[in-house]
Amino acid sequence: MATYDGKFRDERNWQQFHNPKDLSLALSIEASELLEAFLWKAPEAADPEKVKEELADVLAYALLLCDTYNFDIEKIILEKIEKNEEKYPVHKAKGTAKKYNEL
Amino acid sequence: MATYDGKFRDERNWQQFHNPKDLSLALSIEASELLEAFLWKAPEAADPEKVKEELADVLAYALLLCDTYNFDIEKIILEKIEKNEEKYPVHKAKGTAKKYNEL
Amino acid sequence: MATYDGKFRDERNWQQFHNPKDLSLALSIEASELLEAFLWKAPEAADPEKVKEELADVLAYALLLCDTYNFDIEKIILEKIEKNEEKYPVHKAKGTAKKYNEL
Amino acid sequence: MATYDGKFRDERNWQQFHNPKDLSLALSIEASELLEAFLWKAPEAADPEKVKEELADVLAYALLLCDTYNFDIEKIILEKIEKNEEKYPVHKAKGTAKKYNEL
Repeated sequence: MATYDGKFRDERNWQQFHNPKDLSLALSIEASELLEAFLWKAPEAADPEKVKEELADVLAYALLLCDTYNFDIEKIILEKIEKNEEKYPVHKAKGTAKKYNEL
Repeated sequence: MATYDGKFRDERNWQQFHNPKDLSLALSIEASELLEAFLWKAPEAADPEKVKEELADVLAYALLLCDTYNFDIEKIILEKIEKNEEKYPVHKAKGTAKKYNEL
Repeated sequence: MATYDGKFRDERNWQQFHNPKDLSLALSIEASELLEAFLWKAPEAADPEKVKEELADVLAYALLLCDTYNFDIEKIILEKIEKNEEKYPVHKAKGTAKKYNEL
Repeated sequence: MATYDGKFRDERNWQQFHNPKDLSLALSIEASELLEAFLWKAPEAADPEKVKEELADVLAYALLLCDTYNFDIEKIILEKIEKNEEKYPVHKAKGTAKKYNEL
């Protein structure tokens, strides 16, 4: 992620709009546009180009949020995976889609 | 992102549930849990720990989707920023929150 | 909808938190909880009780928003259906899931 | 809601696409379009016409879901309000935006 440095945002003076609440709204709106690629369709029938674009938008807002809070993106994902390993131990979670509180 | 390799998923045999439509649903649900950190609150008043966790969940599903489609995460973000540079030229977009089709 | 009069909200002094932006956030969060009833499942395999609860939450926030803007709920739905009849004329839209701008 | 009878849908043969999972996706996508009316804006600064349209879309899908499950819309909302009265008793919930499990 070293390549993303907020240059696009800063050249446009957009940081003024980018409070974390609205960034999260924007991320959630993009996540819905991603969903729209699958609407009324079989699970594998979305247009990959559309998926790619919407996913990139989701990721771009996620990076802006990480930037706002000074989160290290790789570190927070690894921390989360560790937490999930405790919530979903292999011997309980293997082959089931149940939520951790139903295991 | 080199550190994420789907090991957590594969140890649990979860790939069977992970069709791209449901992965996008899951991403969208996590994006809403991120939003919930800001609900009924001033824009800067969310608990950063909660934001961090939900953002990590969003990112984890985004990575699983990239993995499904063989997208290179850095590449798709850079491509998108290039597209946005065309949609939002600096001289038009500077200092306004308008959508590209209203500029 | 004559039976809903905001009494539940007003007894708790919650109108202070109920600006339309946060009400829309809340509605969107509940819509995601509705989605969660279908996650990793076949289209018809959700628990109807869970669907009922989350749908009720979505509707409750929709009513609070209608109340905020003094919208007549039946009227706005009928107006929308009329608009959609223009956007999706029967002879074009019959039997296809295409979006109006692709018809 | 007596006026909504699925005629618009049935004239277009759209019931085939309207499984409850995709209807919930559609509802969630419309909820996000509602959110978009508030993005980068002060809580009261959305365009009421845009809010009205998106809210109507949310409601239309909510009604289609109620129809699918044979839910009586007024009844499920009233049931939910009763449940919430137990979860959020006035003496505990008055004037606070806390979630029921934090009261």
